[in-house]
Amino acid sequence: MPKIVQCVPNFSEGRDLDKVEEIVSVLKDKKGFNLVSYEPDADYNRTVVTLLGDPLKIIDAVVLFTGKVLELVDMNNQSGEHPRMGAVDVIPFIPIEDVTMEECVEYANIIGKKINDKYAIPIFLYAEAANKKDRVKLPNIRKGEFEGMKDKIKEERWYPDFGVPEIHPTFGVIGVGARIPLIAYNIDLDTKDTKVANNIAKTIRFSSGGFRHIQAGPVYLDNRGHVQVTLNILDYKKNPIYRIFETVKMEAKRYHVNVTASELVGLLPRDSLVRSLRYYFKVNSLEFDKTMSLDDLTKYTIKYLKFRDFDKYKIIEANIK
Amino acid sequence: MPKIVQCVPNFSEGRDLDKVEEIVSVLKDKKGFNLVSYEPDADYNRTVVTLLGDPLKIIDAVVLFTGKVLELVDMNNQSGEHPRMGAVDVIPFIPIEDVTMEECVEYANIIGKKINDKYAIPIFLYAEAANKKDRVKLPNIRKGEFEGMKDKIKEERWYPDFGVPEIHPTFGVIGVGARIPLIAYNIDLDTKDTKVANNIAKTIRFSSGGFRHIQAGPVYLDNRGHVQVTLNILDYKKNPIYRIFETVKMEAKRYHVNVTASELVGLLPRDSLVRSLRYYFKVNSLEFDKTMSLDDLTKYTIKYLKFRDFDKYKIIEANIK
Repeated sequence: MPKIVQCVPNFSEGRDLDKVEEIVSVLKDKKGFNLVSYEPDADYNRTVVTLLGDPLKIIDAVVLFTGKVLELVDMNNQSGEHPRMGAVDVIPFIPIEDVTMEECVEYANIIGKKINDKYAIPIFLYAEAANKKDRVKLPNIRKGEFEGMKDKIKEERWYPDFGVPEIHPTFGVIGVGARIPLIAYNIDLDTKDTKVANNIAKTIRFSSGGFRHIQAGPVYLDNRGHVQVTLNILDYKKNPIYRIFETVKMEAKRYHVNVTASELVGLLPRDSLVRSLRYYFKVNSLEFDKTMSLDDLTKYTIKYLKFRDFDKYKIIEANIK
Repeated sequence: MPKIVQCVPNFSEGRDLDKVEEIVSVLKDKKGFNLVSYEPDADYNRTVVTLLGDPLKIIDAVVLFTGKVLELVDMNNQSGEHPRMGAVDVIPFIPIEDVTMEECVEYANIIGKKINDKYAIPIFLYAEAANKKDRVKLPNIRKGEFEGMKDKIKEERWYPDFGVPEIHPTFGVIGVGARIPLIAYNIDLDTKDTKVANNIAKTIRFSSGGFRHIQAGPVYLDNRGHVQVTLNILDYKKNPIYRIFETVKMEAKRYHVNVTASELVGLLPRDSLVRSLRYYFKVNSLEFDKTMSLDDLTKYTIKYLKFRDFDKYKIIEANIK
């Protein structure tokens, strides 16, 4: 079996769709991997790109892609709802088939060195690829963002893993990592009050005492006119989607706010939906068929977890052969 | 204002009520502190004693109480549902009024030394009083229980904080600690299936990925004929009672099991009820009067959190003056 990794570069342009197309074009129709999706978000001013395929082919293409972003995005003129420290903000590698986490850590090191050699952009290794304990969690590295990184990188404990302790003046720095599949997921609330989303985020996120594998925060979506609890599920086996979704619904009740929908960013593994749908099937005394088609899984996900803008190609397995 | 601490010794006899009475008698009608309650539990074969008052008076009395337990309880013949490592299993000090956590750590050291000097019982300091990182959490120390401690204590990393590395042959060892108020709390499920309680416990406890300040496990209550999720809330501000109670209800649905009641062991601070009742008042669009009497607080706690066997004297503040 060929080695398959998922690679999810995030870059800091989500408004100028011409630029987004030009950047993404270097990843289209390449041999050895698929450009599964790219999702520009105007509120976040950020685009999440999902690649699936041969790790070495992906590495070469993402180096070129980084060059294109360097050419088109100047962080000195960039702002958006999502925290960011570079024009390409993060490049994580995720093992999918016939690849170990150790190999993904190696890929992170290979691409980190290549990008730094070629463009003099400082690289921080995070998650499983981290060399230092306080770099395991990306938010630790990113704290202060592009603007703060100018000074932060000069402190010895924040010297980059590749490169000199000086940010690239227009690009900033990149976090390159290896990790298990993470689910980036947002829950819509029918209010404009960010305080409500913030209070709810605090009840579920680890850093405020909530679930162990949850990062969460509030965001106001100007385009849509409502707030979201935006979250990362770092371990969907221990903190399944349904449990977070139901806890948010429970907390929302005290504000008399409705949970109207939820939204996936990027992809998720089939298994993460199976684990959540089982809950709703059991609650409703229905037999769960674990061999159900991806189409059926998609249908029930929309029904029970209220996913909007969702189709089966957001399930990783739908994109492999 | 006089210094007031809460001290909650737990001893490993909850079935022979004559013995329980004889042991507790040394704490009755003493000057300087109140014996607020003692709650023998036959299933657990354990009694939780709650004292409230002057710390130095409590220390002297608890030393005598330990001598009485040593006289009456032989751990070689003891078994019950609750894990335990000594005839007196734990002695925690909790700051209540005009006392700092640092002072409570000092009290733990004073009583630990006194008990070891007098009875040659080894003492482990835990929670805020811990001298080593892996002794902060009581379950780490207690792992292996009375039976396993015979060998465990001989490993250098498990040498006791007071005493020689040898358990007392009939008594075992004691954990002496200082901590913020902990809420020991059980949720009743109308099933005899311990697996259900175990599955639910895993979803909420930190060690399995759940809420950060929750310890939880399953227990079958032979006397009552149903299971409980038994839990400690280590920080009720970050993980309020209602959130845990509602999450357990949500998880119980998949097993078609009802949450019939919940039960407090020991005392809790007024503030912990206020924080939870606010949720239910808001959900029901009712005005919450934060100055409400302890009688009213008690009434609403029974109504919304389904506490059974509860009265206002389980609220710490009802026992001061």
